Amino acid sequence: MPHTLRSLFSLLILLPLLAQAADPLPSWTNSSSRAAIEQFVSAVTEEGGKDYVTPAERIAVFDNDGTLWSEQPMYFEVLFALDEVKRMAPQHPEWNTEQPFKAVLDGDHKALAESGKEGMWKIIAATHAGVSTEAFVAQTRKWFTTAVHPKSKRPYTEMVYQPMLELLQYLRANGFKTYIVSGGEVAFMRAFAEEVYGIPPEQVIGMTLASRLQDSNASLSIQRLPTLQRSNDGPGKPVSIDAAIGRRPILAFGNSDGDLQMLQWSMAGTGKRFAGLVHHTDANREWAYDRNSKVGRLDKALVAAEQNAWTVVDMAREWRRVYAFEQLAAAD
Amino acid sequence: MPHTLRSLFSLLILLPLLAQAADPLPSWTNSSSRAAIEQFVSAVTEEGGKDYVTPAERIAVFDNDGTLWSEQPMYFEVLFALDEVKRMAPQHPEWNTEQPFKAVLDGDHKALAESGKEGMWKIIAATHAGVSTEAFVAQTRKWFTTAVHPKSKRPYTEMVYQPMLELLQYLRANGFKTYIVSGGEVAFMRAFAEEVYGIPPEQVIGMTLASRLQDSNASLSIQRLPTLQRSNDGPGKPVSIDAAIGRRPILAFGNSDGDLQMLQWSMAGTGKRFAGLVHHTDANREWAYDRNSKVGRLDKALVAAEQNAWTVVDMAREWRRVYAFEQLAAAD
Repeated sequence: MPHTLRSLFSLLILLPLLAQAADPLPSWTNSSSRAAIEQFVSAVTEEGGKDYVTPAERIAVFDNDGTLWSEQPMYFEVLFALDEVKRMAPQHPEWNTEQPFKAVLDGDHKALAESGKEGMWKIIAATHAGVSTEAFVAQTRKWFTTAVHPKSKRPYTEMVYQPMLELLQYLRANGFKTYIVSGGEVAFMRAFAEEVYGIPPEQVIGMTLASRLQDSNASLSIQRLPTLQRSNDGPGKPVSIDAAIGRRPILAFGNSDGDLQMLQWSMAGTGKRFAGLVHHTDANREWAYDRNSKVGRLDKALVAAEQNAWTVVDMAREWRRVYAFEQLAAAD
Repeated sequence: MPHTLRSLFSLLILLPLLAQAADPLPSWTNSSSRAAIEQFVSAVTEEGGKDYVTPAERIAVFDNDGTLWSEQPMYFEVLFALDEVKRMAPQHPEWNTEQPFKAVLDGDHKALAESGKEGMWKIIAATHAGVSTEAFVAQTRKWFTTAVHPKSKRPYTEMVYQPMLELLQYLRANGFKTYIVSGGEVAFMRAFAEEVYGIPPEQVIGMTLASRLQDSNASLSIQRLPTLQRSNDGPGKPVSIDAAIGRRPILAFGNSDGDLQMLQWSMAGTGKRFAGLVHHTDANREWAYDRNSKVGRLDKALVAAEQNAWTVVDMAREWRRVYAFEQLAAAD
């Protein structure tokens, strides 16, 4: 092949790659949500423009369950805790007769449901406390390497939304600092957030257990206590953002009523702002639920979105794929 | 002037500037502390070296009072609170008879001292709560523009240690993320940390007041409550670092016994680590105090530093200047 022809050929085979590199949001259709996101990012990053925001103030907050990864048939952290009860059971013979642990070990969904919030807290405390933060993170990572989702049979870390991964990366490429603000326990999320979302531990805000410094065997560690330090849902989200970040976000994304106050408070600041909701409309590729769901109920926040013209992402229509392992659907 | 001579002359007048640009720590003498800092930074940033640490793990934590700025004759935040009591007094006629406020308004140091920790907490609560975070930060900034230090008569934001500013910048230039971890109230520090230290609000960890989301006059804000959410001293420092950052720092700098556990816990991790103490030995340019001081007592941490060969900075001998407004002393 003559040299010039070979060069041309090299260029030609690069073209599809270049086209993909040029589109930062390839898993989004050319729809209204995508346009709203791109317009917002253009506006706040245009130097000299009337809506310009300095990089330091480009704080973007994301709920996790149902916003960055799936939350059906149950929050994945709860499924982790149930697995942990089974793993730890040999060291806890008393669990064979003690609720809600007996219900977990017997697979008794009715008894488990009857144990209610108090029962769930007992399970969270038993499986999340009593160890150092470092040991807990290591155990969580171990679980992620073997556990699979009950429906897809894939690792939970593959149940993340590819369009949202692209959005996170797109925002970071435009000078945003991306945060998770979730009701999930903070160390559980930190165990995978950096690898899976590109979000470092210090940008993960969540439910927090009390803890204390422990000096044993000539080794200092932070020990997790079975006491709730701070929950992180509803009005607790803006409070924890203010405490941890000290700035009001200019972009907030959620998917349920637990995110309502975070979105409202973020939008109540001055200057151009963006609020988005992931609407679970896709019974085929993911799940379809909103007002009547026990997990991730979306009712009041959907009304607020309509009233305030927030961006509501119709998953079925606006996402060309939900997960990275799927084929891309048509762009329009 | 011939052209070549003029060029040579231009180069000559640039020489001192170039020399300064080449030395990232010009306010440090060529002493053991400087050498220890430079050796540590070289070791953890040398790619392929045995002590290499990835940038994401290069977490550096600094105490504030007495470590980054002065803390004599009293913590500056306390001086702020006393000024605020005077400013707010016209709206609080009851303070004319109520302690410890009466003592502040009368300038009665004895009665103020007798009110003890409980009295101090009343003053902090009265001056730090009851407003939104944004309003409090604005008021703090206003104070900084007019208040001056009782001894130097300079703004408090000029009472910061120039050698430590250089150290912060040197660490950031080498991929470190620099944090403040202080017993001071977090919003008070955030009011100046970004401008003065180059440390953004989200990298400031401190004492925290309880707060809540308030919806009034169609405006959502975070209101500060007169309740302690979390103090941040002694063993509380590693606990709050673990909760906020989720990584164990590889460098920690303090100046008092309140920093001891932060330094111990930071040093107890794996790999190469650095612990430093600012030792106040300079009665001429700053203050000289350690074991017997009520403010910033340094006793147990000094023993620990000797036992563990931590770096102890002898301010009088190792700093060529304390504040930016001073002349540089000789380098050796």
